[in-house]
Amino acid sequence: MTFETEKRMNYTERDTYGMYNAYKGATSGGPGPELMGADTLVGNDVYNQKGEKLGDIKEVMLDMRSGRVAYAVLSFGGFLGMGEKLFAVPWNALTLDTATKSFKLNVDKDRLKTAPGFDKDHWPNMADATWAQSIHTYYGTKLYSDEPRH
Amino acid sequence: MTFETEKRMNYTERDTYGMYNAYKGATSGGPGPELMGADTLVGNDVYNQKGEKLGDIKEVMLDMRSGRVAYAVLSFGGFLGMGEKLFAVPWNALTLDTATKSFKLNVDKDRLKTAPGFDKDHWPNMADATWAQSIHTYYGTKLYSDEPRH
Repeated sequence: MTFETEKRMNYTERDTYGMYNAYKGATSGGPGPELMGADTLVGNDVYNQKGEKLGDIKEVMLDMRSGRVAYAVLSFGGFLGMGEKLFAVPWNALTLDTATKSFKLNVDKDRLKTAPGFDKDHWPNMADATWAQSIHTYYGTKLYSDEPRH
Repeated sequence: MTFETEKRMNYTERDTYGMYNAYKGATSGGPGPELMGADTLVGNDVYNQKGEKLGDIKEVMLDMRSGRVAYAVLSFGGFLGMGEKLFAVPWNALTLDTATKSFKLNVDKDRLKTAPGFDKDHWPNMADATWAQSIHTYYGTKLYSDEPRH
């Protein structure tokens, strides 16, 4: 049995504008959960399918070429000694659970030991196709086609 | 002749991780400008085609259904008495000018007077198709199809 003493964090706590006030009893309106403010997601917890906390979101990477949300940059700090590294996780590997206001990433904690990460001070060239493919191969996701922005 | 006394702001100033260090003389690497960190764009200046500052980015709205970047939420504060309102601008109406590290939005200042905005404390339901169409009609952009997330 473990005790969760770490502070939990979700997007309603970083909602400086109150865009999610509908969650708090307002009758209607607001963009969520279909549309979410990127800035409100920074710090949001990420759990796996077993309900284990994996880490939290540090950034959301936007592909300016396609207009797509490309990656969430996660920290898996707090276990495995992985606190010094960051991990780009394909956006389509993450799902938003509005009940718990957390993201789900279906990866076992053990398997994260081999996740492709990078040093906080040395971000990869995310436009590099080889790098992108290696990330998608690891998470079993498909790289969206580089369709033109319209 | 006018003097710009307002502080300019671009993504390198909000780059807490140094992801754009390649701009600052590092030899290579980093995600930008093809991929940009959503959080670093908050506060970034937006100009029009005449080089007039229109406002700045307050949020970036992600469409969780399609995985697309849907809107930038802008403040046009500082002129026209529009400081109290926010404006959702289609992401595909904005282009990133990496030379000036600013976003370009081709709208005349005068025309902004009739831009569809909302009160900071009352965000619209951005999943509403009628609302979305009204925004895209105003800016002359096309609503991306609601393709399934993959």
